[in-house]
Amino acid sequence: MVPRLAPRCPVRPFPWQVACSAGAFVRQSTCVGASRTPVWGRLHGVQGTTPLVRRGSSSTSSQAPGVALTCERYPVRRLPFSSVSEDDLATFERIIPGRVITDPEELAASNVDWLRTMRGCSKVLLKPRTSEEVSHILRYCHERNLAVNTQGGNTGLVGGSVPVFDEIILSTALMNQVISFHNVSGILVCQAGCILEELSRYVEERGFIMPLDLGAKGSCHIGGNLATNAGGLRFLRYGSLRGTVLGLEVVLADGTVLNCLTSLRKDNTGYDLKQLFIGSEGTLGVITAVSILCPPKPGAVNVAFLGCPGFAEVLQTFSTCKRMLGEILSAYEFMDAECMQLVGHHLRLARPVQESPFYVLVETSGSRAEHDAEKLSSFLEHVLGCGLVTDGTLATDQRKIKTLWALRERITEALSRDGYVYKYDLSLPVDRLYDLVTDLRARLGPRARHVVGYGHLGDGNLHLNVTAEAFSAALLGELEPYVYQWTAGQRGSVSAEHGVGFKKQSVLGYSKPPEALRLMQQLKALLDPRGLLNP
Amino acid sequence: MVPRLAPRCPVRPFPWQVACSAGAFVRQSTCVGASRTPVWGRLHGVQGTTPLVRRGSSSTSSQAPGVALTCERYPVRRLPFSSVSEDDLATFERIIPGRVITDPEELAASNVDWLRTMRGCSKVLLKPRTSEEVSHILRYCHERNLAVNTQGGNTGLVGGSVPVFDEIILSTALMNQVISFHNVSGILVCQAGCILEELSRYVEERGFIMPLDLGAKGSCHIGGNLATNAGGLRFLRYGSLRGTVLGLEVVLADGTVLNCLTSLRKDNTGYDLKQLFIGSEGTLGVITAVSILCPPKPGAVNVAFLGCPGFAEVLQTFSTCKRMLGEILSAYEFMDAECMQLVGHHLRLARPVQESPFYVLVETSGSRAEHDAEKLSSFLEHVLGCGLVTDGTLATDQRKIKTLWALRERITEALSRDGYVYKYDLSLPVDRLYDLVTDLRARLGPRARHVVGYGHLGDGNLHLNVTAEAFSAALLGELEPYVYQWTAGQRGSVSAEHGVGFKKQSVLGYSKPPEALRLMQQLKALLDPRGLLNP
Repeated sequence: MVPRLAPRCPVRPFPWQVACSAGAFVRQSTCVGASRTPVWGRLHGVQGTTPLVRRGSSSTSSQAPGVALTCERYPVRRLPFSSVSEDDLATFERIIPGRVITDPEELAASNVDWLRTMRGCSKVLLKPRTSEEVSHILRYCHERNLAVNTQGGNTGLVGGSVPVFDEIILSTALMNQVISFHNVSGILVCQAGCILEELSRYVEERGFIMPLDLGAKGSCHIGGNLATNAGGLRFLRYGSLRGTVLGLEVVLADGTVLNCLTSLRKDNTGYDLKQLFIGSEGTLGVITAVSILCPPKPGAVNVAFLGCPGFAEVLQTFSTCKRMLGEILSAYEFMDAECMQLVGHHLRLARPVQESPFYVLVETSGSRAEHDAEKLSSFLEHVLGCGLVTDGTLATDQRKIKTLWALRERITEALSRDGYVYKYDLSLPVDRLYDLVTDLRARLGPRARHVVGYGHLGDGNLHLNVTAEAFSAALLGELEPYVYQWTAGQRGSVSAEHGVGFKKQSVLGYSKPPEALRLMQQLKALLDPRGLLNP
Repeated sequence: MVPRLAPRCPVRPFPWQVACSAGAFVRQSTCVGASRTPVWGRLHGVQGTTPLVRRGSSSTSSQAPGVALTCERYPVRRLPFSSVSEDDLATFERIIPGRVITDPEELAASNVDWLRTMRGCSKVLLKPRTSEEVSHILRYCHERNLAVNTQGGNTGLVGGSVPVFDEIILSTALMNQVISFHNVSGILVCQAGCILEELSRYVEERGFIMPLDLGAKGSCHIGGNLATNAGGLRFLRYGSLRGTVLGLEVVLADGTVLNCLTSLRKDNTGYDLKQLFIGSEGTLGVITAVSILCPPKPGAVNVAFLGCPGFAEVLQTFSTCKRMLGEILSAYEFMDAECMQLVGHHLRLARPVQESPFYVLVETSGSRAEHDAEKLSSFLEHVLGCGLVTDGTLATDQRKIKTLWALRERITEALSRDGYVYKYDLSLPVDRLYDLVTDLRARLGPRARHVVGYGHLGDGNLHLNVTAEAFSAALLGELEPYVYQWTAGQRGSVSAEHGVGFKKQSVLGYSKPPEALRLMQQLKALLDPRGLLNP
């Protein structure tokens, strides 16, 4: 069974999506290199959304006005890699005929990250379809000393998905085939460029769900999810990708194809090499195919959206939740009042409950609707009765569930409309999680437009965001290293799920000891001795 | 909070345990090096168990009669490591005073594996208490070119826990401190030598459970569990240790202490180094401490023990189970009729249901007893009604649950009493899982005493065991490489959860391609360039 996840326009394309001549979602070679704005959130074509035009798109300008070149904004130096020559282009054209993109207009979108804070100046975008093609490309780049930046859906938030200088962009967009799906075990094997939302749809039609879900699902590639060890909204229930991913196929820097694409739940024959590549952000090899275990689709899903009078109550509601909902609890997300104001203001999403200092989204997923309803109703009665929650709304039908989830999932989008965004993704002890937000509000005062906190409370993961009119080195100086020092003081992590990318490289030392950093460098030297991959 | 998991005698010591003068369970320095027979199964002092005296124990003979030296049975050659000198012993004595064991009587048990199929001739056993001591020892061994074999509970089944020649045995037995436990998040941080069953008891008293459980729980160390990436009985529900382990502290071959002992659910700052050591069986470093996420203790646990008329029905019952029990299903184990005969014959455990070709153990764990009971009763009605199951018994109280689990957990012990055991631990597609057992019975005929199949069906994991009067090279020749070839033909794994150890080194190629084996060798060379750890 080798079904194709055919590139197709969604029924209701996202309103702020920039269209290319062949349609915004077309990923075929007729429209290669088309600018695609990542699709965030579950609500396609939601009412009241105003269009956010991606300024760096092909329809505007290849120079991506407003986005400074990374090499101008940051003090970085290009390493002595070769530059792409006409001969190189001719070789690539022989390897992947018709899929070597050099048109500056078409390249522009792939040079700029989704947040529009990073811009590279790559001159060529390659779109292989198979692992063999990737292997040929990398072998050639290795011989020629050409640096390569692998790009999935370009939805990353730390500048890891775009070139810094003129690295070749290796896109997985055309590697979008499902290789196999086992209807009993739920094991999916697919190419790395499959879009998460399309995979979700594919497995849901067969009675399963993907073990991960995130706001960028409409654009992000499963290979990118693995390369960045994405967390997301189902982490609380289904755990880390390190447990649910069964196998990987990876092309190493020298072009060697490493086939660890097993579909076994257990395999203790030697070192688990795939783990090296999960979360290594394309620096050790290019993930070309994935084998992943999908959990059965729950028979009943419910979402409660609640208002809490304080952060202490958010925490107590979480403890109560774990105790009373037990095995059916599948998400526990929180957002503060400013987040709600932003999604209301910029996206016109209506607040579904009374105004509160904090909001919580609780999702349950179970196999028997009446049991889940009973558990949830006992829980809601309890938390409302004892004042942990002051107002709430419950959704059991798919449409309302999506509407409630959109409030949480589209915060990133609302923030990006609020100005320049300084983003932090921190792991902290849950009881201190929100203190940093309050602290920063006082510290920054009116220099920040908004300081907001939201995230996966169940995983101890805070998304801390500060918006301002424009990028300012002075404001950055107020934020960093303060935020990292504060986090290190709590023995937290300075990147919980977003990864390191370009932006967090220099702050690894806040979360990792020197011995660990040294071993990481040794691994990089072992697997990519010339340092060509995402340099 | 630094509580001590004080070594203490259990209330009802296991009857076939060999006692040392200070009591079979004492692990203090007053009794260091005492022979401890691994404690298998949940049933301590179960009625009708006959004593199995460990022949190689300190109470019998240091020569471990009946167990051939590994270097005599197998064609292996000692590498040019140094031999332990008097000066070395004096140095060790300075590092860990009073915990350098050289008495041959005391060393005997640590030189022989639990299955009594491997015997090394180490002349010294070291018992550090801290990571710093381990670091000093390894730094010294690195300088002196002395090979080291790390030993936890010595319950491994593939000869990985005992020396092959005269490697120094580095025991984690005295590294048995709980470092911290967080009562809200359930995150446990402890030293590597804590015994799994004692940790289970510790966290259960605080409302949590360990995310893994296995037959050897009474002896195995958590560090050994991680070093071998143990699967076990809770894998189906709580998944791989690669997801539930949050952090590790590891001492590298040169004595460097690598502190990745984070207690964060998410941390994407650089490569996830701990994954290198999980499942690497002590060949890349010595795990000295562990941070692990414990799930909440379920409010209700039920176990059903069922008889099935054929293997097809075992599979169909599993599918039905997944559908009808959903999120509360926590184990699905199967065993064949010969397994039941062996536990009946050797351990005098009574068969709880009518005689059947196959038996299945289904465990549910949920947060609300009445909901679980309803789900389980609908399931049982259905499978009995349609003939998938011909007889069954249900346990809801702790005592009966233990009795039923013992039937499954003590198969290993029953087999070891049946003669010499050829053990295979395979991952296979579930629908072909049992074919190999039938095939081998026909192939071996009366040359085998028993050919049995059992295991974690829910994980596609078959434990295939063949017993015979004694070790026979001819019978081994019938079994290998046949079993491995058969498994490779199904794209299975030749070691699902038991690991590689000494016995499976040569068969890795059946489950891993040459590129993967080469990378494993490179990693070993990077982390342990002199090849001193478990050589």
